[in-house]
Amino acid sequence: MDDVLADATGQLINLYEKEFGVRVARESMNHREDREKFPAHNEAVFQFVFRKGFFRSMPVNEHSQQVMKKLNEKYEVFIVSSAMEFPNSLIEKLEWLNEHFPFLHWKQFVFCGKKSIVHGDYMIDDLPHNLDTFNGEKILFTAPHNMQYNHLTRVNGWLEVEQLLLK
Amino acid sequence: MDDVLADATGQLINLYEKEFGVRVARESMNHREDREKFPAHNEAVFQFVFRKGFFRSMPVNEHSQQVMKKLNEKYEVFIVSSAMEFPNSLIEKLEWLNEHFPFLHWKQFVFCGKKSIVHGDYMIDDLPHNLDTFNGEKILFTAPHNMQYNHLTRVNGWLEVEQLLLK
Repeated sequence: MDDVLADATGQLINLYEKEFGVRVARESMNHREDREKFPAHNEAVFQFVFRKGFFRSMPVNEHSQQVMKKLNEKYEVFIVSSAMEFPNSLIEKLEWLNEHFPFLHWKQFVFCGKKSIVHGDYMIDDLPHNLDTFNGEKILFTAPHNMQYNHLTRVNGWLEVEQLLLK
Repeated sequence: MDDVLADATGQLINLYEKEFGVRVARESMNHREDREKFPAHNEAVFQFVFRKGFFRSMPVNEHSQQVMKKLNEKYEVFIVSSAMEFPNSLIEKLEWLNEHFPFLHWKQFVFCGKKSIVHGDYMIDDLPHNLDTFNGEKILFTAPHNMQYNHLTRVNGWLEVEQLLLK
């Protein structure tokens, strides 16, 4: 979900600006791991995710709805999200999916701590360590924190997912 | 979780008695599917699970804590629970696990809609349809609603899990 279906990075940029009065450019985060994305206050930023509403109000990533709708017609799709670390996020993520992806059924949702438990034909994820343990084809969804990895098939946005899996 | 780690059947029997004044014997439920376990009011019983606190206050199944603790020392254990149908249950199940199984880490928890997405070496479950799609060894945990199934390895309680997986 985060930084694949949802624009988690954008949400952090917005909250950072509100809190510290500085608008950080998305490009400045390239090649940086999660806890070093901002010029300062990275520990404070990490606390944003525990705030009520953080996940519920996440912007939707561009083209994710239209491409997911088509994927869902061709494949058995599951949304697998690391949610267990943030207890608030459980209900917020469920409500977010119901609002923005109403064509998906709750049977398709998986909230977990560690993604090594799931299997399938394809996994699309922004974190290489989630992909590393997957049995099927691994697809890295471009995000600022994964620009430094070159060992995986990469998609730059949802239109490239469409190209790869629906053409 | 339900009817494996947690005594969901016992929780329903208690709530039924409180609501309708009749204590239903656990044995009378043998061979009955979920929606026909009680002599009457089965639709009302199904609504119990949507009540706040239903999952949070679930009794712990006998011997589940001590055996799970040992399993957790020998195996990579995941708790996989169908929770998505009942939005309240998400946070309640997480809190319940943290209270009664404090030796497990949130990385070991999976709340899903459909268990066909998980894989592993062994699955212990009370519902044959969850086991049917599993890649590894399938172990049916005895519950009133599964007495009629004879095609799977069966364990009658947690001491038999210990016998099977820890001896």
